[in-house]
Amino acid sequence: MNETGTTEALVVSVCRAAKAAAPALARAGTLAKNAALRAMSEGLLSRAGFLKEENAKDLEAGKARGLSAAMLDRLLLNDARIRQMADGIGEVVSLPDPVGGIGRMERRPNGLLVGRMRIPLGVIGIIYESRPNVTADAAALCVKSGNAVVLRGGSEAIRSNAAIAEILRGALSSAGLPVDAVSFIPVTDREAIDAMLRQEESIDLIIPRGGEGLIRSVVEKSRIPVIKHYKGVCHIYVDETADIDPAVRVCVNAKAQRPGVCNAMETLLVHEAIAPTFLPKVAEAMTGAGVELRGCPETVRRVPGTTPATDADWGMEYLDLVLAVRVVPSMDAAMEHIRRYGSLHTEAILTRDHDRAMRFLREVDSSLVLVNASTRFNDGFQLGLGAEIGISTTKIHAFGPMGLEELTTSKFVAFGEGQVRQ
Amino acid sequence: MNETGTTEALVVSVCRAAKAAAPALARAGTLAKNAALRAMSEGLLSRAGFLKEENAKDLEAGKARGLSAAMLDRLLLNDARIRQMADGIGEVVSLPDPVGGIGRMERRPNGLLVGRMRIPLGVIGIIYESRPNVTADAAALCVKSGNAVVLRGGSEAIRSNAAIAEILRGALSSAGLPVDAVSFIPVTDREAIDAMLRQEESIDLIIPRGGEGLIRSVVEKSRIPVIKHYKGVCHIYVDETADIDPAVRVCVNAKAQRPGVCNAMETLLVHEAIAPTFLPKVAEAMTGAGVELRGCPETVRRVPGTTPATDADWGMEYLDLVLAVRVVPSMDAAMEHIRRYGSLHTEAILTRDHDRAMRFLREVDSSLVLVNASTRFNDGFQLGLGAEIGISTTKIHAFGPMGLEELTTSKFVAFGEGQVRQ
Repeated sequence: MNETGTTEALVVSVCRAAKAAAPALARAGTLAKNAALRAMSEGLLSRAGFLKEENAKDLEAGKARGLSAAMLDRLLLNDARIRQMADGIGEVVSLPDPVGGIGRMERRPNGLLVGRMRIPLGVIGIIYESRPNVTADAAALCVKSGNAVVLRGGSEAIRSNAAIAEILRGALSSAGLPVDAVSFIPVTDREAIDAMLRQEESIDLIIPRGGEGLIRSVVEKSRIPVIKHYKGVCHIYVDETADIDPAVRVCVNAKAQRPGVCNAMETLLVHEAIAPTFLPKVAEAMTGAGVELRGCPETVRRVPGTTPATDADWGMEYLDLVLAVRVVPSMDAAMEHIRRYGSLHTEAILTRDHDRAMRFLREVDSSLVLVNASTRFNDGFQLGLGAEIGISTTKIHAFGPMGLEELTTSKFVAFGEGQVRQ
Repeated sequence: MNETGTTEALVVSVCRAAKAAAPALARAGTLAKNAALRAMSEGLLSRAGFLKEENAKDLEAGKARGLSAAMLDRLLLNDARIRQMADGIGEVVSLPDPVGGIGRMERRPNGLLVGRMRIPLGVIGIIYESRPNVTADAAALCVKSGNAVVLRGGSEAIRSNAAIAEILRGALSSAGLPVDAVSFIPVTDREAIDAMLRQEESIDLIIPRGGEGLIRSVVEKSRIPVIKHYKGVCHIYVDETADIDPAVRVCVNAKAQRPGVCNAMETLLVHEAIAPTFLPKVAEAMTGAGVELRGCPETVRRVPGTTPATDADWGMEYLDLVLAVRVVPSMDAAMEHIRRYGSLHTEAILTRDHDRAMRFLREVDSSLVLVNASTRFNDGFQLGLGAEIGISTTKIHAFGPMGLEELTTSKFVAFGEGQVRQ
């Protein structure tokens, strides 16, 4: 058997094992799942030494391969980060279990009582890149929602990920749940991803988490439904009626509070009627927060010294202390800009005009649309989901933050008394 | 430009036109959408002559190609069928419009008011085979749910489909809605489907309706999420405690009331303790209804003269007056049989035992699970959805009958008063 054949056979067997484990996990009660999660959390802490040892090998290999300091930092597992992973799992224990509830029960004219029961999706495949904590976070959410999971992490973190997976599997076993409910693909060649994306008989949903290249390639090759967690090119539109000081505060928060994340603002759109008063103030505050502005000609005129924006600045996800600024003649022009350059992630309007607020909310097609608040609220914890596996920018199945409920689906159930179809 | 290039360019332009029309349709109010639907219904009736003329050309071409009488019957549009299409659209007018409603609104600790607004998916691609009524039915449901649609029907019905699409587009225009909200791909070569499945920038969801070959090929090639409407290998399990006479009635209804549809029963599983009394009765009733039985050895022993089943009979979708029958030692064996041979479509248990009823309901993984009722109830009208575009056997997004609500998704909306993230 050649190399490719070996990888394929391995991936097939890992995915089939997860599928075989899925029914037992789907049937498992909340108490058993919580016991497994507690054992996972405790296992990560009690085996911190082992985790740091395995992580050290990844770091060493990364240095030898010339990874950047930022990349090495993402890889690093220290006591604080191990504690964070363990605490994260502990929080999932306290979330309500969505599985098994029946909603919308109604009696049909023929007496049949029809409802929808929430059920796990089955097997979820997670394809991710360098951060090893994803192994623990994603597995915990999948287990709590009754799903088996197949994890395929990046090559840089292979030893750390394998060590975490080993601990999580031990915890499942100690709680009487099938170990293969958390399955890990221990090979990191590209062919492993391609083979995984062909296992439509075993995997029900693929969630890729990573850069644009990874996500595009997964979407192109997958035979399994994919929920993209794609880039965030988030906009704030400052309407002519906005209150200036609160608007400045919200904009600075959206851009500068944590610029490296997907819900940070990347482009500021300003109504031309408020530009003369708002632009100088927001520019001063942004500069004070270390933000570099790239402006349209009108912005450059109003705020001398601003770098002129090029076409490439519109729609750019900087993930950095850089902000594109454009003056627009109307809210329609702002919405047209968002339609053209946005990524369906998060947009906000700042206004005192009720009709415009409601129209923006209705017509802008993003996973979260806000009135008078920072884009930084697009997050499962902030929106009340309790936890999230990521933020979907795919409209199918779940749009926006995905919590436990979004990792489930529902089937129809019906109670009859011998009803037949006429 | 070669032929393939021409098809590709045409498909790209049709899909882009639909995408360009989608925002206006998504914003359209219920009154405008209903006006368009009424005009569609009236247009089909007032242009019945034109429809029958175009349909006659399809029928003639079909005869020349040697299509079977059954295929030609599926193609046929007569006055009664045109009236049915028109009435079907009329029924969609009376259904509630799901778009724009906001649910689950809650105030977060920081005062942010967060909810979920129901929105259209965007552009839905429907790939279907020979029945021309799908053109009208699917377009009406998409328009009512605020979605643009790209229709790609089978080559046999090309002239009929094109004629229906022309009438529907005229109706959109008369109601002030963009005609491209109903877009039709006028070429029927295989390359048109392949090209359509690559338009992930324009199409948000693909729904294939047709045979196993079509669906497999679509899933394999699509870069766009696909909701499969797959075969129905439906089972009824008759428990040892079932009431015999009602059980016989339900089984005969599930098999024989309309055997050619996906929610008809294909395999009957009988608990061994009830087999001696139940099997002769159900066999007699089935034979009376013209049903041929294929039985396991125990069934053959109990009902002399039954054709022995082969391995190929388990999991077979006969779509005909044929039924596979198997005696099982327990409910667990029945559920194991369903896991192995079922298609996640519809399964029922007939029992008087409450614990078993609840366990079967919970553990069987099908889009509809029934207690003491016929599998024939898996249908959007019967379950209270008002209409359906089909029955999804994909767990992602929608599982079971898909009505108007299942053709939408939701985005998060948030009302703030200047909130910033800490």
